[in-house]
Amino acid sequence: MTDNALTTKTPLTLLGAGAMGTALARTWLAAGHPVTVWNRTPARAEALAAEGATVAASAAAAVAANRLVIACLLDDASVGEALGTADLQDRDLVNLTTGTPGQGRERAAWAQGRGARFLDGGIMGTPPMIEAPDSGAYVFYSGSAGLFEEHRATLAVPAATTYVGADPGFAALHDVALLSAMDGMFAGITHAFALIHSEDIAPKDFAQLLAEWLTAMTFMVHKAADQVASGDYAKDVVSNLAMQSAANATLLSTAEEQGVSTELLTPYADLMARRVADGHGDEDITGVLELLVQEKKS
Amino acid sequence: MTDNALTTKTPLTLLGAGAMGTALARTWLAAGHPVTVWNRTPARAEALAAEGATVAASAAAAVAANRLVIACLLDDASVGEALGTADLQDRDLVNLTTGTPGQGRERAAWAQGRGARFLDGGIMGTPPMIEAPDSGAYVFYSGSAGLFEEHRATLAVPAATTYVGADPGFAALHDVALLSAMDGMFAGITHAFALIHSEDIAPKDFAQLLAEWLTAMTFMVHKAADQVASGDYAKDVVSNLAMQSAANATLLSTAEEQGVSTELLTPYADLMARRVADGHGDEDITGVLELLVQEKKS
Ligand SMILES: NC(=O)c1ccc[n+]([C@@H]2O[C@H](COP(=O)([O-])OP(=O)(O)OC[C@H]3O[C@@H](n4cnc5c(N)ncnc54)[C@H](OP(=O)(O)O)[C@@H]3O)[C@@H](O)[C@H]2O)c1
Ligand SMILES: NC(=O)c1ccc[n+]([C@@H]2O[C@H](COP(=O)([O-])OP(=O)(O)OC[C@H]3O[C@@H](n4cnc5c(N)ncnc54)[C@H](OP(=O)(O)O)[C@@H]3O)[C@@H](O)[C@H]2O)c1
Repeated sequence: MTDNALTTKTPLTLLGAGAMGTALARTWLAAGHPVTVWNRTPARAEALAAEGATVAASAAAAVAANRLVIACLLDDASVGEALGTADLQDRDLVNLTTGTPGQGRERAAWAQGRGARFLDGGIMGTPPMIEAPDSGAYVFYSGSAGLFEEHRATLAVPAATTYVGADPGFAALHDVALLSAMDGMFAGITHAFALIHSEDIAPKDFAQLLAEWLTAMTFMVHKAADQVASGDYAKDVVSNLAMQSAANATLLSTAEEQGVSTELLTPYADLMARRVADGHGDEDITGVLELLVQEKKS
Repeated sequence: MTDNALTTKTPLTLLGAGAMGTALARTWLAAGHPVTVWNRTPARAEALAAEGATVAASAAAAVAANRLVIACLLDDASVGEALGTADLQDRDLVNLTTGTPGQGRERAAWAQGRGARFLDGGIMGTPPMIEAPDSGAYVFYSGSAGLFEEHRATLAVPAATTYVGADPGFAALHDVALLSAMDGMFAGITHAFALIHSEDIAPKDFAQLLAEWLTAMTFMVHKAADQVASGDYAKDVVSNLAMQSAANATLLSTAEEQGVSTELLTPYADLMARRVADGHGDEDITGVLELLVQEKKS
């Protein structure tokens, strides 16, 4: 690497050399960015030194080294702890630590109060995906649009970037919303495999059918969006809620026949039944969300 | 339509002119199959008569009219009721009525005892999908391989066919497994929309991100199949269960912050925590299925 290549790339500080921090650091080092790294347990940062990173003796020293500071620590509390004594005046702090939207908003106010611009991030991918090119990994960003625009190219090195708004809570909100939906899908997948588990059905053949089916059924996401946006849950209904709720009886009986617990099925089935009882049987299944958000409304 | 075209296509009987039966009948009529239809409430069958179907006065008469008999009624009990007095000797009975695997097996034994070959079917699609060409709708079939092979071309008229084995319960099992997984995904989607519901986030933009994410995450289906087939839940782990279980705290806190009920998240989160407590934190999330099937095992 030539001195010239080094000087054209924005130098940055990375706080946290855990699994994710290390993967991030490697992509910036490989792209020629000077990286100053700090980790609470020094041994983990030393590994990156061998790959070209400068190791700082303290978080405060690491923050002093560069204007652009990326934090990728365990949780929001560790960010507060690590940055407790650091001078954040005129720093651009990018927080890639997973947290809630509320933590993102509070951390933004805290950083701004100390003279820094702040961008929160939610990483949609794993460390191996960050290190592999074109893995599909990306990062949600929200908060300071100025910071994002200025450092866009640098931020795009480890993964694609998706800016979702000035509200510093939105990156975490998008992150958590997608992970929550994924959890529902994984729960459904687990239940499906449990159903066939004791039968002479090849998991591989079944997986092909299941993956195709789930992929095809993602069309419901767009339909739900349209219904939520219009506030009209009766829009473009094909199988109404009454019919879908009635069909749950077969799903529950089948689980019982196959000796599979119904615990992953019942909460959604119960919500459907409640919504039908409330008089919304001729609408689409999307309307169930009204029962989930009622706490906030009342 | 010429007499010649009519005589080259297998004539068939359809029991049930509900939403689905009517859609099925239309595709066979359009393809030139002579169709004899019976419906408990005669008015619904009359509509099909105008499109070329012959209406039978009773289910027994409809069964007597053709060797190939398709039933598409409300539920398994209605099949028993409708066919109570019909002579099934030498009939080929294809049951497209939704049921459990156990009902499919019992209905097969019942039909065979009355001299019929039996094929059970599970329709993966809605009536409009059946009537639209290339909608992606298909039907799982299981039971008599002879019946399936002989009538394959006729059965393929309304939708693509997927034969999943001689066990007459397997069509229903595949059907229910896919619907159960879909329910999990829909539950997750509903929770995700509930999270962003009160925020200034365009549902349409969010839907695009969510649909892409869920589609990308279906890779887990293949991974789960591999782990289930090998019985090794530690195979190819990237984010282990301990890490994923710990991440649930952020998902649950975010729901609370956003005023969204956690009822759709907690059952799966609880299973993850139990599985970690059982000492499987270093395995993949797939192992949770062991907790679902324990009833059958013990
Ligand atoms: N791994 C993934 O698949 C993934 C995916 C998306 C997002 N993320 C997020 O990325 C962040 C880092 O995850 P990771 O996988 O790198 O975790 P990890 O390997 O466990 O690393 C945790 C890091 O946080 C540091 N840390 C913990 N408590 C601290 C404290 N009180 N003060 C200062 N530093 C502290 C650790 O330092 P020590 O070495 O001294 O313990 C280590 O550098 C998390 O917020 C995680 O949710 C991870
Ligand atoms: N619609 C869908 O999206 C869909 C998708 C996949 C599978 N399916 C399955 O297809 C089957 C039919 O559904 P569908 O949508 O056509 O329902 P539907 O419109 O409600 O029609 C029900 C049919 O069953 C008949 N029936 C009900 N009870 C009966 C009894 N005791 N004896 C005789 N006939 C009786 C009805 O006759 P009457 O007209 O006299 O009431 C009618 O023909 C169901 O098993 C359903 O699960 C439907």
